[in-house]
This record gives sequence, C-alpha cells and structure tokens, in this order.
Amino acid sequence: MLTPAKASEPSTQGLKTLGIVGAGQLARMLIEAASPLDIKIVVLAEANGEPATLVASRTMLGLPSDPKAMAALAEACDVITFDHELVDLEILSRLEAEGTAIHPPSSALRYACNKAAMRAKLSEAAIACPRFLVLEPGQDFSLAEDFASMVGLALVAKAATGGYDGRGVFMPESLDELRQIIDELHEEKITVLLEERVAIKRELAALVVRGMDGSLVTWPTVETVQINGMCQQVEAPGDLPDALREHAGRIAAEIAHALGLVGVMAVELFETEDGLLVNELAMRPHNTGHWTIEGAVTSQFENHLRAVLGLSLGSSEMTAAAVAMVNLLGPEDGSDPRDRLHEALAISGAHLHLYGKAARPGRKLGHVTTLGSERHEVLERAWQASSALGTQRKGAQP
Amino acid sequence: MLTPAKASEPSTQGLKTLGIVGAGQLARMLIEAASPLDIKIVVLAEANGEPATLVASRTMLGLPSDPKAMAALAEACDVITFDHELVDLEILSRLEAEGTAIHPPSSALRYACNKAAMRAKLSEAAIACPRFLVLEPGQDFSLAEDFASMVGLALVAKAATGGYDGRGVFMPESLDELRQIIDELHEEKITVLLEERVAIKRELAALVVRGMDGSLVTWPTVETVQINGMCQQVEAPGDLPDALREHAGRIAAEIAHALGLVGVMAVELFETEDGLLVNELAMRPHNTGHWTIEGAVTSQFENHLRAVLGLSLGSSEMTAAAVAMVNLLGPEDGSDPRDRLHEALAISGAHLHLYGKAARPGRKLGHVTTLGSERHEVLERAWQASSALGTQRKGAQP
Repeated sequence: MLTPAKASEPSTQGLKTLGIVGAGQLARMLIEAASPLDIKIVVLAEANGEPATLVASRTMLGLPSDPKAMAALAEACDVITFDHELVDLEILSRLEAEGTAIHPPSSALRYACNKAAMRAKLSEAAIACPRFLVLEPGQDFSLAEDFASMVGLALVAKAATGGYDGRGVFMPESLDELRQIIDELHEEKITVLLEERVAIKRELAALVVRGMDGSLVTWPTVETVQINGMCQQVEAPGDLPDALREHAGRIAAEIAHALGLVGVMAVELFETEDGLLVNELAMRPHNTGHWTIEGAVTSQFENHLRAVLGLSLGSSEMTAAAVAMVNLLGPEDGSDPRDRLHEALAISGAHLHLYGKAARPGRKLGHVTTLGSERHEVLERAWQASSALGTQRKGAQP
Repeated sequence: MLTPAKASEPSTQGLKTLGIVGAGQLARMLIEAASPLDIKIVVLAEANGEPATLVASRTMLGLPSDPKAMAALAEACDVITFDHELVDLEILSRLEAEGTAIHPPSSALRYACNKAAMRAKLSEAAIACPRFLVLEPGQDFSLAEDFASMVGLALVAKAATGGYDGRGVFMPESLDELRQIIDELHEEKITVLLEERVAIKRELAALVVRGMDGSLVTWPTVETVQINGMCQQVEAPGDLPDALREHAGRIAAEIAHALGLVGVMAVELFETEDGLLVNELAMRPHNTGHWTIEGAVTSQFENHLRAVLGLSLGSSEMTAAAVAMVNLLGPEDGSDPRDRLHEALAISGAHLHLYGKAARPGRKLGHVTTLGSERHEVLERAWQASSALGTQRKGAQP
C-alpha cells in the first residue's frame, strides 16, 4: 500500500525544535545547516511556496504580527529565531514573559527592527555613525531643515522600520522632496531617520556570532559592493588592510556585547576619510555572510543555530585564501536561471545556491560562491557562473 | 489563521523532481545536497521516522519490492535513483521499458545487487579479484569442497544478494560449518559466493562518478578501517603511495565505464602482496565517501545528483591536505550522542553529521569529519569528537 507520509508531523527524536519566524532564503539555508546536526525546524510562513517551505519538513502558516500564530509557533518549538526583522516586538516581549526562549531576545532585536533606536543606542555607546536626526511623526519639519543646513542637502532619509534591500531608503534632491518623503512616512506613523550622505571609499561588512554565555566569534570582515541598497558581490577578505578589517570586527563585537545579542549579527560599515562608520545592522544570518557556507570552517547559518540553541560556537577561520560571493538576480529577459544549471555547474568550483523562487527581473534568486588562492581569479569565476545563469553583472569590475 | 501547510504537496517550481528509493542516511544527505541546487526530492520510505523522512518535504510510503509503490514513485518524479541496493531488478526493467529514467540503470545496478554477477562481470573484464566460486541453489557441495581444497579453508562465504554492513558475510572455520551456511542460504534460494580469504595489507576505497555522457570524475582514493564489515574510519589520502591510489582510481573508472554506470560508485579494494584486489562495489554514495562533503570541492552527494540529472559534474579536488572521517556508533551504555552535542561541537573544526536515528549500541548514528594539514592530528581530532559523543574507538590507532 502506498500512502502519503505525514511529513509535517513533528518527530519525537532529536535535540530541540527551533521555530523560525519567516520562510525566506535565510530560513531555507538555516534548514540546510540544521539537518546534519539533527535539529528540528518549524517555519512560520506567510504562504506556501516561500523558499523555506519548499524544503521544510514542517511549516505553519501565519503572520508574525498575529499573536495567535506566534503563540502556536511558541507552542510547537523550544526556541524561536528569525529570518527577517519585520516582527512585532510587543508580541515577542509577551511570549518571553510567558517563558518562551527567543533569540536574539526582543531587548536586542529592537535595535535591528528600528533604525532610529539603533542610531540612538550606538551613539550612546560612542560607536561612530554618520550624523543623524530622528524625526517622529508630529515633529516639525524645521528640525529637518536645521539638520540639512548642517550636513547639506546630500542626506539620506530612511523609514526607521519596515525597510529591507534598499526599500525604505530615499535620496531626496531638494527640501521639497524631503518634506514630501517625511510627510508620507509620518502619515503612516513611521518614524524617519535622516542621515548625512557620507563620501564612501569602500563598503565593508563585519559578521559576528554571540552565544548565550557571552562567547563571541568574529568572521573575517569582507568587502562588499551594493547597488541601490542590494548586495551585488562580496569578497573575503578583498583587498582590505588587516588593521581595517580587524577594526570593523572589533566594532561588531562591541555592538554585540552592548546589545546583549544571541545569534549572528552582520554590521554594514562605510569606510570614509574619517574612518569607519556603522551603516546598518542585522541580527540574523546576512547576505554578506553567505560566503561562509563554503568559505569558513563554520558557516553563519550553523553558528546561528548553535548560538540560539546554547551550543558551542564553531571556528570562523577561512577555508581558502580568497572567497567571492555574487548574488544571482533574475535576468532582465525574464528567463529562469534554473534552465541553465548545466552551464553554470560547468564552471569549476562554482557553488550554486538557488532559493526556489520564481524568476522575475532583478529579483534575488540565489547566490554563487567560489574559493581559491587569488582574489581576482576567484571573483571572475563567480561572475562567470552568474553570467552562465543569465544574470547581469552590475557590480564593480575587479 | 494558522493552518498546517501542505508541505508534502509537490512544488511546481524547480528543475526536476528526483525520486529516491529508500530513506536512510544516504537519502538524507542527498536531500541536504539537493536543496541548494533547488532539486526537488521524493523519498520512497518503508516507514515514517526513517532518517530521510525527517528532513524530506515529500515522502511516499512503500517497499521497493512492491510494483505499485514503484510505479507511483515513477509517476511522481522525473528520475529515480537509490539509497540502497535492496531493489527488485525486474520491476526496474519494466519501468525503464515504460520510459522511466532510472540511474544507475538496472543494467548496471544488477552488479551492485548481486555479488556473484559482479564477480563474473569483473573477471570477464580482467579486473583483479580474490579467487571465487559461485554456488547456485541446487548445485552440489562437492564444488565447494574442491574450491576449499584449492584456496584453503580460509575462505569467505557471502550471500550473493541482500547483505550490507557485514551482514550476509560468513567466515566458516570448518567444512561442516561451510556446508551448513550454504544449505541455509540455498534453502532461501540465495546464491552463495565463495571467495578466498586474502592476506590484507590495507583496505582502500576508490570513488568515482560517471555522467550520462560518459564523463567521469575520480575522487582521491582513501584508506579505510573496517571492523566486522562496518566502516570505522576513513583517511583521505591516508599514507597510501600516490601510485597505489591512482591505480585504485583507474580500476574504479574502468569498472564504471565497463558497467555503464550513471551516478556515484564506490569500489572497496584490498591491498595484498599480489597487488590490488576488488572486494565490493556500491552504485550510490558510500560511507567511505562521506568525507567529500567538506573535504572535496564537490561532494559525492552533489555529484550523484548532478550525474543522475544529466548535469555537469563537479571537481573532486580536496579542500585540505588531510581529511578524516569517523563513524559515530551508538554508545554501549545505550546513551544518545545527541545529548552531548555541546561537548562534541567544542572540538575545533569537527563537522558533525547526525542521521536522526534512535540510539542503539553499535548502530551507525552519524559521522564526523575533520580537515587539516597533518594526517595524525586530523584523525585524532575526529576521534576526539566521536569520543565526546560517547562512541567507542574500535578502529586502528593512527
């Protein structure tokens, strides 16, 4: 007799069950890292078909903003962690008060969910950031004018909450345009963060993981290329001077300790004439850390699992002298990169990661990682694989 | 609203759906390798709870000996491959005749399912094997006596079909005992293979993958330690001379071409005073190849997927100078290694792979792989992680 197995039923075996809020590619790669350690995963997805649902043995449907869905997830697992920051901190605090283990805890997560809170907290800790102004709904535009007269009109306006991959980030070209952006966000009760637009020499990303016992592991800081707020390519270690990389790592470590982080945190930084400035931070595995799957002894995904489950953290040492990661964006002609897998896999040592998403022009569909001894050769090979899949090269030439 | 997602429904996205007959740890590790390439997997399991069912997004229940179960699997996927060799070749031939893509094809698989057929075929191809005699049910014992008088009583009796991990292999100490073994197997209609017991200097395993277009990739040959027919430890490359390793690789390649293999094949060999002799072969990812997950640019699991789906094969180059793999066997005290994950993960660079099996003394529950620059150090670290999980060291001391 042939009957479909109830694959969605929880297993009684294994260590602990981890609930992941969100079912995007980060949840999918956490699932890939969980299987060898026999860690059970339940994903809370908005809809079937999201990347992690396609590989999850157990999926629940619901929104992170729905208290019932979150309570059901808490019921189904031992620890809750996150695929994204679009969460409701009040719901999380309530669950924590009821005894649910949530990592990173809501007390740390609030700085990743709210860019205004993050800026205020980092300033308090004397960590160098671009100059900024927080403008709450109801506050007067004259404050923004004063800020603009100080830093110049070359400023950036950000929605304090809800943005990702460049969304919620604006570059106004006039005071009128700035006023319009602020009015629209304030109308939606969204706090606005204004930042000076700094002259960027290079963009860097530092990656750390912090355990429940305060233990901390720092991966080598990488050099990134972002276009319109979306990561295009990452080089580890790139051609960054050691002192700069180590400085970035120390900043990330300092933030992790200051915020009581448990899990992985990525810190995006700008290298400027005045030194390193913190741009953004994310308290979860991050696009700029995907290279660690093959390029480090322990990946950001495995170490995130280890941290949030209270296990020993693994080494962040690189497995090769040079590692490159290139994002695979949907080809402009609308074609599906999966139809060209054969060609891309013919590129020697191209490690492909596809997220199970339907192809749309410009959509982040996957990434490719290459390892080797020489920076330019490694990066070139990553782009070859990306091109073989039909995605366009927009990043800086090596 | 919170509703359980129908995770077991097939997705319409992705490249191709691959059906795997059997749901053991090999199927589980194939699933782990399939996710990054967005290859959909359906496992045919005997029962829920088997290792692969715990991580599969789609499981069907049924026996490989059930024509209906096999037909349903063929219906649900584009290509069929295997977790084990306990299959029914007649059912497979019939499905192939009806147009189902099966890799490796039944014409090759028969040599992995039947040790007597394998010996005959390798002899025909002039590949060095231990001297052997095939004794079909009904054939007279005097043939066995003649064989014993030629090779001595130091011989091995094997069930031609149905054995694994040392099961179905016998070392009789007298002619009476040999007669009894043969009678019992013949009574079950099982063909008996008698082989001379050769003086083994070392045990080796060669690993190759062959594509549909005849392309072939050979991983570095490894040195293995087997106890009672079960693999204990693997060293790549161990202290094998290059010429010997390359010879073993050439033998495996020759067999792969001769048999029309598609997919991964492991060939276990004996190093003897008279050179290399082929012991066993398996047409699937193999325990002696688990080290390739971290230790080679492309793992045996990923290359098996690539081969059976007609994709370009990946590089087999090692990622470190020395790699060790140690099997994790259930502790004698019946304890569960998963309760000691924290301790094992504290061993630097220990890559743990747990299969989701309930702990029983001596049962193969997982494996651990370590990488480094020096053979003894790497092997010692693998055993440290194994010991931290409570499993006993039975293998040879390095």
